Amino acid sequence: MPPNVEIFSQGEELVRGQVVDSNAAWLSEQLVGIGLPVRRHSTVGDNLTDLIALLVEIAQRADCCICTGGLGPTVDDLTAEAVATAFDLPLEFDSQAYQQIAAWFQRRNRPMPESNRKQAMLPRGSIRLDNHWGTAPGFALQQGRCWFAFVPGVPYEMRQLFRESILPRLQSRYQCQPEKQVVIKTVGIGESDIQQRLADIDFPEGIQLGFRAGSDEIQTKLLFPAACPDAEIEIFTRKVVQQLGDVVFLVEGLTGETGTLVTVVGDLLRQRGKNLALFETLSHGLLASKCLGQDWLKASLVAPGQEFVRQNAGQAAERLASVSGGPGRAGYVLVQLCQDCGQDPADVKSAVTLENILFVDGEARYRQQIRVSGTLKRKQNQAAIRALDFIRRSLLQETD
Amino acid sequence: MPPNVEIFSQGEELVRGQVVDSNAAWLSEQLVGIGLPVRRHSTVGDNLTDLIALLVEIAQRADCCICTGGLGPTVDDLTAEAVATAFDLPLEFDSQAYQQIAAWFQRRNRPMPESNRKQAMLPRGSIRLDNHWGTAPGFALQQGRCWFAFVPGVPYEMRQLFRESILPRLQSRYQCQPEKQVVIKTVGIGESDIQQRLADIDFPEGIQLGFRAGSDEIQTKLLFPAACPDAEIEIFTRKVVQQLGDVVFLVEGLTGETGTLVTVVGDLLRQRGKNLALFETLSHGLLASKCLGQDWLKASLVAPGQEFVRQNAGQAAERLASVSGGPGRAGYVLVQLCQDCGQDPADVKSAVTLENILFVDGEARYRQQIRVSGTLKRKQNQAAIRALDFIRRSLLQETD
Repeated sequence: MPPNVEIFSQGEELVRGQVVDSNAAWLSEQLVGIGLPVRRHSTVGDNLTDLIALLVEIAQRADCCICTGGLGPTVDDLTAEAVATAFDLPLEFDSQAYQQIAAWFQRRNRPMPESNRKQAMLPRGSIRLDNHWGTAPGFALQQGRCWFAFVPGVPYEMRQLFRESILPRLQSRYQCQPEKQVVIKTVGIGESDIQQRLADIDFPEGIQLGFRAGSDEIQTKLLFPAACPDAEIEIFTRKVVQQLGDVVFLVEGLTGETGTLVTVVGDLLRQRGKNLALFETLSHGLLASKCLGQDWLKASLVAPGQEFVRQNAGQAAERLASVSGGPGRAGYVLVQLCQDCGQDPADVKSAVTLENILFVDGEARYRQQIRVSGTLKRKQNQAAIRALDFIRRSLLQETD
Repeated sequence: MPPNVEIFSQGEELVRGQVVDSNAAWLSEQLVGIGLPVRRHSTVGDNLTDLIALLVEIAQRADCCICTGGLGPTVDDLTAEAVATAFDLPLEFDSQAYQQIAAWFQRRNRPMPESNRKQAMLPRGSIRLDNHWGTAPGFALQQGRCWFAFVPGVPYEMRQLFRESILPRLQSRYQCQPEKQVVIKTVGIGESDIQQRLADIDFPEGIQLGFRAGSDEIQTKLLFPAACPDAEIEIFTRKVVQQLGDVVFLVEGLTGETGTLVTVVGDLLRQRGKNLALFETLSHGLLASKCLGQDWLKASLVAPGQEFVRQNAGQAAERLASVSGGPGRAGYVLVQLCQDCGQDPADVKSAVTLENILFVDGEARYRQQIRVSGTLKRKQNQAAIRALDFIRRSLLQETD
């Protein structure tokens, strides 16, 4: 039986819905990743009664609980007080914690407010988890059947503390046997169509199939038992990839390769020693925006009133090169036309037709028409992603 | 005493951290918005034991619980079965639910899989909540002290069902007294600096101060008791706005006005009858992307290798007009220069200096230098947002 692991989030902003609890999801992924499945998430606000009740419950129910939030210096931050009351462990002044907090302010040339002294008060018998990234130290303690670790709710501090202080303790505490995961990334196909294509495959016992649909890609996840041999994983993965076909742009977890559609396109461009320039209509700058930090993107002209683009598509490549100091004739230029958009794509609530044209060395060599639908923002994103995928598919056809 | 309201989310993908639970946050915001504070969120996976235990707990603890997820047609979808077992309410075939599901498939010209029949099985004594947006009907029932409403986890269906079937029932069930909320939106200032500026203001009893920091704006939220007169709200809000100064770009909740920095800039441009074109470097298309659907944005040239932009800043306005069919000389052109970026802003891990220049009718009239830091993505976003804010501040100085 694996240990019963839980996540406890504390924060009025969470329970009121002003902030989405991404900490809980991040922690769960880390825990599942090392072979510790999480059974429950719980969240309460800045309410001492609720905090105490939940701590007492968890101490009886779980073997391990990671708790975030409520360690700040203000009167709303009640976690340490709740722990002290729930488990009858009076708060004690930790002089090393105090010195660390004071040093944090000293490094920033700021006076330490009196309120921060509170952060050096830790429940009796707890272990301090040093926080080198902020003022609030974490702490850990065993209570009832449960080992609790308390860390700040600030995501950056929480992640650092988890990696440095919690992860090693969990790994020495439990015989962690992580599942092996392969992620197959696709674009231009929906989740239900993926399921349909995979319906004919016979999944051996123990292999779990999962999906994660994002705006830029859909991930098909294969989870293999820890003991599954690598050769078997590879054979089965190849079978799934073959069934999915050319919508697959990347497989992560077999060769160490990772990336996104942008990096895959970048690799294809670099292999061919070429640059890219863009003429965007409906994607409206989002395509260029996704290529941030990629040295092969030389320029993008965003011209939402695509009447101009349509009339000048033939000369777009050269014009773009001339105005941007861009790729010149020795590169690729993608021209995106938005056929049903008229002058104002924002007016169109139904599906619209996009035409993508890829110019290679000044010649319009590849063309594609696609339909995109949904809200204006979704259409914009689809326009950007499908254009990238069109470039990927076109480059794969280029044999030079 | 307000009723004790909880949110219950069901889903293996949630408890494993593959999906962030935005449903819980959305529901909480809705409930708090109508004056029903939420005390706890709980999440468990596709595990009958855990589901039953949690349902039994909540029935003893809460007055009202909104539950999402687990109503699908597959074997993993266990919510109805868990309810049946936990509360000894056998599942019964609901012929109207069945007809609705069958009609849903008929409208799409698809055969109804046998597995969907399961979705028409509802716990004895429950009220069906019709789902016009998908196949899974919701249901509601009273158990112990708690009124439970169960809806699908698909966000769109969940939201529609909440609005149509749950909200009216809650409003007739409880004397909802929503707090009045004013949101003050700022840009170019951090949360701690906002707190410092507000430190001198004496907050009357009952007025709550909250913050929500996003990547595009920081919201300062003032929560007033339901009984607080509008005139008092306005006087106090004005005091806070004055204290914050020109970083405030919008106040929501006083006049019915709502918007974003983009719409505020758009209003200023429309008042002056002018268009805008952009020359982006570090913002890399993200600035244009944020202006999606705004007819006043005529073109944006993204040229990450800003050496070209720097050399041609003087002529940028006219060049841009010539290539894009854009605003011509009768508009505004923003030119963004990235001074420390060299040829490749992706190389720079520390802070970089951006120079924004606003051309009015061909003349470089306003200039601003700012520093942005953080990850490359954060710098990109700051570059876009601060440029927009610079345009806003410049337009406010234009008296013509």
